[in-house]
Amino acid sequence: MEKEEMREESEIEARAKGNNVSPAVIKRLPRYFRYLRELIRNGKLRISSGELSEMMNVTASQIRQDLNCFGGFGQQGYGYNVNYLYAKVCEILGVGEGYSAIIIGSGNLGRALVRNPMFEKRGVDIVGMFDVAPEVIGKRVADIEIRGMDELEKFCDAQKVDMAVLTCPKENALDAAERLVRLGIKGIWNFTGKELEHLGKGVVVENVHIGDSLMTLCYELRAQEEKMSEDV
Amino acid sequence: MEKEEMREESEIEARAKGNNVSPAVIKRLPRYFRYLRELIRNGKLRISSGELSEMMNVTASQIRQDLNCFGGFGQQGYGYNVNYLYAKVCEILGVGEGYSAIIIGSGNLGRALVRNPMFEKRGVDIVGMFDVAPEVIGKRVADIEIRGMDELEKFCDAQKVDMAVLTCPKENALDAAERLVRLGIKGIWNFTGKELEHLGKGVVVENVHIGDSLMTLCYELRAQEEKMSEDV
Repeated sequence: MEKEEMREESEIEARAKGNNVSPAVIKRLPRYFRYLRELIRNGKLRISSGELSEMMNVTASQIRQDLNCFGGFGQQGYGYNVNYLYAKVCEILGVGEGYSAIIIGSGNLGRALVRNPMFEKRGVDIVGMFDVAPEVIGKRVADIEIRGMDELEKFCDAQKVDMAVLTCPKENALDAAERLVRLGIKGIWNFTGKELEHLGKGVVVENVHIGDSLMTLCYELRAQEEKMSEDV
Repeated sequence: MEKEEMREESEIEARAKGNNVSPAVIKRLPRYFRYLRELIRNGKLRISSGELSEMMNVTASQIRQDLNCFGGFGQQGYGYNVNYLYAKVCEILGVGEGYSAIIIGSGNLGRALVRNPMFEKRGVDIVGMFDVAPEVIGKRVADIEIRGMDELEKFCDAQKVDMAVLTCPKENALDAAERLVRLGIKGIWNFTGKELEHLGKGVVVENVHIGDSLMTLCYELRAQEEKMSEDV
């Protein structure tokens, strides 16, 4: 994990430098994004660091420090401008770059993802979904037609595709990823459980391991149980 | 995130103390779990720190340090016993505690999860699935019958349920979680996007925000693009 983290760190560092925002703040931004979005949805125009602190379960001084990094200076007794902060977070994170994505695999996970509003919220446009099973090809999920994997080359020639979401079986993950990279796709969001790396120059991969989160839960559950039994 | 991380940190610390394993190592264990499992699957009985380093993209000295923490002393020219390390990681993480789980929501995400072998691999037994939609109640997904939410109390009275996987709509998340906690469920694995916390004494929550990982991918994609354009 270290080398991987170090690599990510250096990319994040380079990017952060351009924005004069520290890498540590960058890592916290997706969380600010979520909370600020929620505030806007609720029609809240201004918020104090104290309120945001309460909401996000982070100290107020940490929040002030973070927001000041990108010029979100609050006014005494008046708070922060929520829309400004949100726009700034989006700008730094690259939300609204107009990235387009395809989903590989139309199983339950692919279907759960294609219907998930998170893509739209983050400015990513799902433009296609691909599968190998003849019985699903031609069907639609959430307005997206499922195409055969044999149409992949033609599809990617005809339109810009920035990223691919891999939900195919683990054993097909590497082949699919290499094929996508050959087609010029630069971002792979990998849910297959197969660790993918070194796919080519300029290609970035996010390997999602949901099971790690389950293990953390099991670990904490047992730690709690032991604590409770000690308390008795 | 800070306070949250600090809380987790202190639980992990308490647990780690009992095992004489540092909290930093504990956080890395789910990844060791995955790689060691893969090695066993491939029939590999022993491995050197160099090989493991190559595989996991971590320095060999880091690996030696981590494994020594829980008594996995390698032998010069002979390497580590893979089965021993795997058993030790499982023991520390609480795999095989025999936890049972129910899934709330039988939509695409619920179905994707119930079919996912990660539960079995981590020793968690899925014992039930619940939904409110009359048209799915009574149907089966992967041998699990979908029950109505009105059967929840009776079900949890009749059998031990340690954790619940929340895949219901965001707006029902808090109600469902509070109801589950009242029924004695101590672990909530939360996929709803609604941040859940302070659900009660001894209750642990893992909030999963898949969208954060998408944002990291977008961010890195843009950072790469800028780097590539500077290189030209």
